[in-house]
Amino acid sequence: MINPKSLTIAYIGGGSRGWAWGLMSDLATEPGLGGQVRLYDIDQEAARDNAMIGNRLSGRADVSGQWAYQAAPTLGEALSGADFVVISILPGTFDEMESDVHTPEKYGIYQAVGDTVGPGGIVRALRTIPMYAEIARAIRDYCPRAWVINYTNPMSLCTRTLYAVFPEVKAFGCCHEVFGAQNLITEALRQEGTAVENRGDIKVNVLGINHFTWINAASYKGMDVMPVYFDFAKRHKDTGFVTKKHWTDNEADQYFRNHHRVTFDLFTRFGICASAGDRHLAEFCPGKWYIENPAAVERWGYGLTPVSFRKKDFKERVERGHRLRDGLEDFDLKNTGEEGVIQIKALLGLGDFVTNMNMPNRGQVAGLPLGSIVETNALFSFDSVKPLLAGQLPDPVNGMVAQHVSNQEAVLAAVLNGDPELAFSAFINDPLVTIGLADARSLYLTMLRNTKKYLPQAFHI
Amino acid sequence: MINPKSLTIAYIGGGSRGWAWGLMSDLATEPGLGGQVRLYDIDQEAARDNAMIGNRLSGRADVSGQWAYQAAPTLGEALSGADFVVISILPGTFDEMESDVHTPEKYGIYQAVGDTVGPGGIVRALRTIPMYAEIARAIRDYCPRAWVINYTNPMSLCTRTLYAVFPEVKAFGCCHEVFGAQNLITEALRQEGTAVENRGDIKVNVLGINHFTWINAASYKGMDVMPVYFDFAKRHKDTGFVTKKHWTDNEADQYFRNHHRVTFDLFTRFGICASAGDRHLAEFCPGKWYIENPAAVERWGYGLTPVSFRKKDFKERVERGHRLRDGLEDFDLKNTGEEGVIQIKALLGLGDFVTNMNMPNRGQVAGLPLGSIVETNALFSFDSVKPLLAGQLPDPVNGMVAQHVSNQEAVLAAVLNGDPELAFSAFINDPLVTIGLADARSLYLTMLRNTKKYLPQAFHI
Amino acid sequence: MINPKSLTIAYIGGGSRGWAWGLMSDLATEPGLGGQVRLYDIDQEAARDNAMIGNRLSGRADVSGQWAYQAAPTLGEALSGADFVVISILPGTFDEMESDVHTPEKYGIYQAVGDTVGPGGIVRALRTIPMYAEIARAIRDYCPRAWVINYTNPMSLCTRTLYAVFPEVKAFGCCHEVFGAQNLITEALRQEGTAVENRGDIKVNVLGINHFTWINAASYKGMDVMPVYFDFAKRHKDTGFVTKKHWTDNEADQYFRNHHRVTFDLFTRFGICASAGDRHLAEFCPGKWYIENPAAVERWGYGLTPVSFRKKDFKERVERGHRLRDGLEDFDLKNTGEEGVIQIKALLGLGDFVTNMNMPNRGQVAGLPLGSIVETNALFSFDSVKPLLAGQLPDPVNGMVAQHVSNQEAVLAAVLNGDPELAFSAFINDPLVTIGLADARSLYLTMLRNTKKYLPQAFHI
Amino acid sequence: MINPKSLTIAYIGGGSRGWAWGLMSDLATEPGLGGQVRLYDIDQEAARDNAMIGNRLSGRADVSGQWAYQAAPTLGEALSGADFVVISILPGTFDEMESDVHTPEKYGIYQAVGDTVGPGGIVRALRTIPMYAEIARAIRDYCPRAWVINYTNPMSLCTRTLYAVFPEVKAFGCCHEVFGAQNLITEALRQEGTAVENRGDIKVNVLGINHFTWINAASYKGMDVMPVYFDFAKRHKDTGFVTKKHWTDNEADQYFRNHHRVTFDLFTRFGICASAGDRHLAEFCPGKWYIENPAAVERWGYGLTPVSFRKKDFKERVERGHRLRDGLEDFDLKNTGEEGVIQIKALLGLGDFVTNMNMPNRGQVAGLPLGSIVETNALFSFDSVKPLLAGQLPDPVNGMVAQHVSNQEAVLAAVLNGDPELAFSAFINDPLVTIGLADARSLYLTMLRNTKKYLPQAFHI
Repeated sequence: MINPKSLTIAYIGGGSRGWAWGLMSDLATEPGLGGQVRLYDIDQEAARDNAMIGNRLSGRADVSGQWAYQAAPTLGEALSGADFVVISILPGTFDEMESDVHTPEKYGIYQAVGDTVGPGGIVRALRTIPMYAEIARAIRDYCPRAWVINYTNPMSLCTRTLYAVFPEVKAFGCCHEVFGAQNLITEALRQEGTAVENRGDIKVNVLGINHFTWINAASYKGMDVMPVYFDFAKRHKDTGFVTKKHWTDNEADQYFRNHHRVTFDLFTRFGICASAGDRHLAEFCPGKWYIENPAAVERWGYGLTPVSFRKKDFKERVERGHRLRDGLEDFDLKNTGEEGVIQIKALLGLGDFVTNMNMPNRGQVAGLPLGSIVETNALFSFDSVKPLLAGQLPDPVNGMVAQHVSNQEAVLAAVLNGDPELAFSAFINDPLVTIGLADARSLYLTMLRNTKKYLPQAFHI
Repeated sequence: MINPKSLTIAYIGGGSRGWAWGLMSDLATEPGLGGQVRLYDIDQEAARDNAMIGNRLSGRADVSGQWAYQAAPTLGEALSGADFVVISILPGTFDEMESDVHTPEKYGIYQAVGDTVGPGGIVRALRTIPMYAEIARAIRDYCPRAWVINYTNPMSLCTRTLYAVFPEVKAFGCCHEVFGAQNLITEALRQEGTAVENRGDIKVNVLGINHFTWINAASYKGMDVMPVYFDFAKRHKDTGFVTKKHWTDNEADQYFRNHHRVTFDLFTRFGICASAGDRHLAEFCPGKWYIENPAAVERWGYGLTPVSFRKKDFKERVERGHRLRDGLEDFDLKNTGEEGVIQIKALLGLGDFVTNMNMPNRGQVAGLPLGSIVETNALFSFDSVKPLLAGQLPDPVNGMVAQHVSNQEAVLAAVLNGDPELAFSAFINDPLVTIGLADARSLYLTMLRNTKKYLPQAFHI
Repeated sequence: MINPKSLTIAYIGGGSRGWAWGLMSDLATEPGLGGQVRLYDIDQEAARDNAMIGNRLSGRADVSGQWAYQAAPTLGEALSGADFVVISILPGTFDEMESDVHTPEKYGIYQAVGDTVGPGGIVRALRTIPMYAEIARAIRDYCPRAWVINYTNPMSLCTRTLYAVFPEVKAFGCCHEVFGAQNLITEALRQEGTAVENRGDIKVNVLGINHFTWINAASYKGMDVMPVYFDFAKRHKDTGFVTKKHWTDNEADQYFRNHHRVTFDLFTRFGICASAGDRHLAEFCPGKWYIENPAAVERWGYGLTPVSFRKKDFKERVERGHRLRDGLEDFDLKNTGEEGVIQIKALLGLGDFVTNMNMPNRGQVAGLPLGSIVETNALFSFDSVKPLLAGQLPDPVNGMVAQHVSNQEAVLAAVLNGDPELAFSAFINDPLVTIGLADARSLYLTMLRNTKKYLPQAFHI
Repeated sequence: MINPKSLTIAYIGGGSRGWAWGLMSDLATEPGLGGQVRLYDIDQEAARDNAMIGNRLSGRADVSGQWAYQAAPTLGEALSGADFVVISILPGTFDEMESDVHTPEKYGIYQAVGDTVGPGGIVRALRTIPMYAEIARAIRDYCPRAWVINYTNPMSLCTRTLYAVFPEVKAFGCCHEVFGAQNLITEALRQEGTAVENRGDIKVNVLGINHFTWINAASYKGMDVMPVYFDFAKRHKDTGFVTKKHWTDNEADQYFRNHHRVTFDLFTRFGICASAGDRHLAEFCPGKWYIENPAAVERWGYGLTPVSFRKKDFKERVERGHRLRDGLEDFDLKNTGEEGVIQIKALLGLGDFVTNMNMPNRGQVAGLPLGSIVETNALFSFDSVKPLLAGQLPDPVNGMVAQHVSNQEAVLAAVLNGDPELAFSAFINDPLVTIGLADARSLYLTMLRNTKKYLPQAFHI
């Protein structure tokens, strides 16, 4: 029996200036858990800085959970004997991501995020899969019984790689995009005069793949809220709807804004509620639908996020990291809304919990291939994550999802077998790649070259 | 949105002197629900008596839920507009059951219960399936959106018939046998010094078919209790273990006693915890294992229940019913431990709930045919019962279970198609039928004749 | 036992001026069969003309099979007691087909055939499915044990409708496009100095869906010919290759020509041999690949077939029909190369036969949904068509095929449930529909209006 | 391209005095093939003797195929570069088989053959699986692209082991028992006045597992022969029917005789034609049905084959082998009726061929687990064995077959994981093991001890 007060958590990508701080915050405010966190990062200095930040936080009077942070010099040392593994890495640098997102623009292909599907998501996967293959082997060798939580994108392919390389891995992927759909339903109910306290009280049935996830049933305290949501969607279909706050003109708001017009359009079209931000959803659909060009994006009311902004933002976060490390800025304790810590507690037997997560399909989603990574609800319980049978998507949606699944399988096989032509087959089948074959070839080769440093030898073409 | 205070529950078999009173008790003690209960029974007087009993109870000061009971003259009137349907019938009378259980004894075949599998269970199914086919059609016609809870045995075939005749039915079957396994684990923990408050705190993963259900993982507050249980089973394997109380020499104790020696033997043999009473489990295994003859049954520490006892007991319950009806005896309010009311609340959206139930296999049990009725955990939520993916049984256990599933499919088809030879094929494949083909034929024909009154014309052979 | 000399064949669409004459020719030259052919057509005069043509042919000295032809006034009279049913209809007229093919051109969408997928194929399906539903019901009522051979496009959806409406139907769909792949391999072998006598000696493993069928193994007399074909494809990839004859400048050659450049491109890209004409293949791929505009089509070396040409050709065939009917022109007896008669013989037990056909997927193609219509080889034998297990397509190809399958399922459900929005969901998911949602809507509505006469009421929007 | 005149065949078990001579005979009479045969046997002298016999035969004027035989000193040398591998071994000696067959008799369990299922078949599998695991690894290492034909029993588990250890193996198992069913149907037709020339003209649909194979459709030149067979079976049900010749009183006839009464009984019971000899079929059914004791066996008209007879017969064959080796007896050239050489020709592309064989289930038999070894028809073609979709067995038969499949999976896992308790789980679930658990344990341990020499260490208990 694992003592919840002396856990060992390995954090791969532990130098992170975002997720890592969030996890520290959630751990610090949780009185039921404690132990050590081993931070591993290829940027060892960043990991060491974060260890200092974490330990400084642990010394504070207002934290409930006692945690000792240390930077681990190697993957093996981080993982050895770990009870839980959290993975949240940046595959490559923002320079590579800049190519992923913006090189396709030269061919008229726009991407709002560029980290899941589309040319950017595929090429990102090409460099991420080898890293995850290495991590999977290390988990197999150092902590085969640990539970592994993945936060990195492309979510499906990262998780898929773990299972492909080490089939006995106990891994799942977490994503908060579904929460947004619950928030949106909350707003729909508010407009009808029903105040919802917690988004988690909106019970939903989740099915699909990460960032292209769908809800086909939703209720709130015994009320079927799908009709309410349907009226809401129709009402706001043309003008959009803004959750919580109004988007300002500042840069971040401009790049991340979302008026749910894509969501509403998909809902009225397919009768099922897409549950991810519009920036993600648009990337999964045929390119002409919602993301043909910046003007169309403007019209649909969401933003394209330039990587230049991510770079600037990253620079600020690095600086903030230094201030936190040096005690020049106080660490701001808050609940992030992420569920990792709740999931860890459930896996320790400290309270069952139902939420959405990503795992290999063993039948929880009918109509999608067994083994592919799907997103559904699951019951988290002691040493157990049991997916709930979620049913099947409507045919047209299933077709769209299935094609992305086929593409993901091809990309995985392409990397594991060193076959760049197979990856190109997936590339030209992506619905954002609305260009001719010759142009697609030229774009693909350019993108490969731009990220060559992180690609297996076979992809140096 | 259904108002939980003005529900309509149709109770098929509402003249029951057992389950019906239990439901009344559970409804009376539940403050969150109210409405009307329509009692339908082919014994209309019994239904009327129970309506009087229920209404008398509703008038008491110590009840929390307000319910009006009425006897419904027809199935249609009972079901029309019902929100929930509870089915708990006695298919035929105890005379027919007497033949089910005791006629085989003339051929050296013993049965402890005789209502699920074995010659008795199969012949019982032959007369039950037509009744359930009729009920299914009535549900389709009168309350297609109602949730249907089945308590009748043979559980799997009753539920299977509902889905075969009306595929859109929202039905599940409930059985408390798994609770016994949780109680047993509770005892194992007590011996180790761990006090468990509620059996429901023992979290289990359930898979199999009703009365031949298995648990392959169990935990208690973060502790894996399978090792504890394994030691416990080995320790008590030879002498048996008695839960809660000691069996006395009185008749009922003699007939219903259970020392879990069959359970322990199966556990040490297959490494997985059978979770039903030994009286049930023994009937699913090859006849020579645990139920060869009364001496063997004695040795294994459980009892064979003679139907004469059930008749005597029934007579007493009828008399008690009269006293309750006439106010000569006070209705004893108590929590029955059954989960029907909790499930109803969950289906109304008044609190999610995870428990075991029986539903068609859509993949929740790998290795068993799709469509067959399997028992697993499910999440009960607003208007939704979602099975959890339960995994797969070990090969030898899977083989035993699969054969019973094949037999059930054959029995269903035999009744629906009027094919007594197909039913006989199932009969001779039952593992309790350890006799030659000629004897089996003679036994089958005798049993058919004894229950002829309730059989379809094609079975009058 | 059916007497092969007194068969009853029902020909639905029996007024046809093409397939019907071909069948007459094949029947006339087959000495082993005889009987009656009942021709049913909504154009009753055409059916009567064909009956006269058939009977005139039967009177000739040079025919081997004795057949009596008669026009059947109703579907029921045609089918009653039939041993075989052949279906080859034109759904609607060429006016409707003109809209299917050419209306999309106004939106920049080009189609070479327009009868299977793409906007044209989908709208054609909308009017064909109701006809096939009617035929399926008539087969169920009049000749439920007959074997049904479908030749109409869209092949998959026609055959799918028969099974959806009458699940016990014994139907399969036939198409000669795979023969072309065998011919192409024959040419590849000829270039290497190997002379192949019959295309059927090229043994192929077939899998996929009709007109988007694939061959992943091919041999000739013990030689693996895939490497030969691979060299051939690479050699002719850029310039194309012309089978049998050179395309002239005449109209038909211009519209139907095929240089296999699409086939070669797909082969070098996916490592598997697409086996349909380029005109079909191009329509299944993303619109920018091979059919972006007439110039691209020109470059890829194939033709777009205008419906005006079909109309002109049809007019000539009608006139020819009159001459044949009136004995002013001699019926030209020849082997059409179609396999219908060979299949009929095999089904009568007169010689086993292996060839490709279209049937519901029962596992013969792994990776595609069960129940969808797939094209594979099958063993034709007495009263039996048994598909061969064909394996699985490569992931990227499987993804493309699966999306068309999802679309077909949606279109079927849309017609059966009267749901034009569901059909539009399929429409916008077709890879040829490379336009925005608003344009797609406008195109869809226009196309519906143009074929309104043949659409169910629900589609009059 | 393989030259059919210079093949390399590796024969594992090449010292055989039966199958090996049969293969020599079939190869010698086949003009289309030639090459070398490498004989490997743990009895190296026997292999050398057979090489001499083979080469002596090759020198004869009346042989058509030219073959050079040589004894291979090691498995690797036999397999290296082989085009085909034939496996036909005796796992252990007849002493071990004597225990397999006769030790259970002390517990009242009789077996007619004892090499497939039952206590004897299971224990035989325990010693055979390690041998096949070794062979599979050697094939993987020395001739991974070779086609492998297995003749050894237990057929299903031998073939299953090859695929479990080397998933890419191209192996199938062959058995002539289905031919007997075709012969029986031939006799049924003869009684009706229809003369059948070749048993292969009886077209059958085959499904099930080896030695418990079933035929659900049969035709002869366009005639459905199931009704004929049904009448025949009913007519001869009580008295039995003898194919071809009358059984004499000589020893072999007594031990191998078969009056098809079990076959007929199964047919009238389940409506489907069991297609193996009664000696095999009886072993797959519950022990009380057809093989309760020698008197019952006598009544059902078949024989139990004592291993003493096999020993005597083997001794005679050894002596005959010496005479053949030394030229003291002439090799008798004849067609054995086995299909191995026809299959080899088909795999070389020299003529397609459809027959029954054993391969992993990829969907060819619905209702049985994927991956288990099933027997169905397949099309043999160039480098290809494609199973035909065979459908599903009736429920009661499927249940019986499925239990044997579960047992086989358990036995395989037991050997591969060194788990004798898992094997015992299968042992007690075998329908012939109609004894109590304690007796079964004692029998199991005795049988293990008797074959200890050939068992893995873990089974030395």
